[in-house]
Amino acid sequence: MSTRGSLRIVGLGPGGAQWMTPEAAELIAGATDLVGYSSYLERIPPAEGQARHATGNGQELARARHALHLAESGRRAVLVSGGDPGVFAMAAAVFEAIAGEPRWRSIDVAVSPGITAMQAAAARAGAPLGHDFCAISLSDNLKPWGVIERRLAAASAADFVIALYNPASEARPGRICDAFALLRSMKDAATPVVFARALGRADEDVSVTVLGAADPSRADMSTLIIIGSSETRIIPRENGPPFVYTPRGAKAVL
Amino acid sequence: MSTRGSLRIVGLGPGGAQWMTPEAAELIAGATDLVGYSSYLERIPPAEGQARHATGNGQELARARHALHLAESGRRAVLVSGGDPGVFAMAAAVFEAIAGEPRWRSIDVAVSPGITAMQAAAARAGAPLGHDFCAISLSDNLKPWGVIERRLAAASAADFVIALYNPASEARPGRICDAFALLRSMKDAATPVVFARALGRADEDVSVTVLGAADPSRADMSTLIIIGSSETRIIPRENGPPFVYTPRGAKAVL
Repeated sequence: MSTRGSLRIVGLGPGGAQWMTPEAAELIAGATDLVGYSSYLERIPPAEGQARHATGNGQELARARHALHLAESGRRAVLVSGGDPGVFAMAAAVFEAIAGEPRWRSIDVAVSPGITAMQAAAARAGAPLGHDFCAISLSDNLKPWGVIERRLAAASAADFVIALYNPASEARPGRICDAFALLRSMKDAATPVVFARALGRADEDVSVTVLGAADPSRADMSTLIIIGSSETRIIPRENGPPFVYTPRGAKAVL
Repeated sequence: MSTRGSLRIVGLGPGGAQWMTPEAAELIAGATDLVGYSSYLERIPPAEGQARHATGNGQELARARHALHLAESGRRAVLVSGGDPGVFAMAAAVFEAIAGEPRWRSIDVAVSPGITAMQAAAARAGAPLGHDFCAISLSDNLKPWGVIERRLAAASAADFVIALYNPASEARPGRICDAFALLRSMKDAATPVVFARALGRADEDVSVTVLGAADPSRADMSTLIIIGSSETRIIPRENGPPFVYTPRGAKAVL
């Protein structure tokens, strides 16, 4: 047994175990300590001799530091994130913590990628992310709302498909309505929109609508929203929900 | 045994089996027919009684139609893609084919998400996709170069992290240099840049540089490039390659 500690940052993917990579499963199985938001740790069966450090929602930086302290003390720590830890999740918090504490630069730290919500949402709907797209977090806890508006406008003007993370906020429930108002002012009312909730879980709910008819207030913190580009199309079907896809090409100069 | 055929579109992830989801593995194991680009099919061990339909590079629409014909004839077809089939890959081609052939709308078709190259590249480098980002394909086979330029400019102006897919083209090797010239005209020379090649394979090569020093001609068709936002930082280390990360927030209005 090595006495040198390590930190691995892994993602469970959204919802079910069918989307967790073998690498993530192996790292979790080999950990002496699991650190993570309690809702994520609850998805992992207990293992004998493996310590668990469950924390509440928020406080990402404190959780990251806790995991780094464990690694520094010689433990094989695994920090568990939902989705992909590298996309609006825990990996950035760990490197922020390392940047603020020079001695932590020598810790053996690595990230393992995971399926993130927009990929599962896209798969359920068809292939809306089939061409150029962007991902924007609507959470304004850590950035000014003006930055979010600027990015929504740029993404609309350049005709990216747009994936919206963290669309709802208990503190500011109206933000998602502001975002949709901005998108409606710049994009066609017939633009396809996908609302995807609780992906991979028993209560999964994916629905397809268009920008002019979408009700943004239905989004909660478990919802991922995809807004099409001008090329995104809906294929209606008689025997199932419609498919949504974005073709591989673009026809004309914007 | 049902006589009703089906088509599942799966992704192997980039490189090694450690990033292929259990869902993809299960769908492949249950297929009567595997369809895909020969380089991807070679990564799957042969199974008795399972037919393989390997095709050359390009010709995505013909490959998609072939898979749909198999499903229509009652086979359990699996179309195998690299990375995530929903991101610059085969899923969009299948729905383009379905859109062009109304009777195919009744086929049982579903997509399974996979790890895409930018996620593996980000994990190897640290967490450069930790905040708002976009993904742009530089291939101009199916869209005008003007659309690509417009999107690169919009992504720079709105300060997204940018992941570049398909950076090199045998037909037009100079395009990646044009793209970098545009990015250099709009972004700081100290912006972190990650070149990631052959991810998850024995010859994997990930390197970190800055926009002012980057040599875009080193990119080939197996290379994924990540260009930072103004917030993206490099953490140098004495005992290993540097970490690159984008903090979870943004400091100021653009």
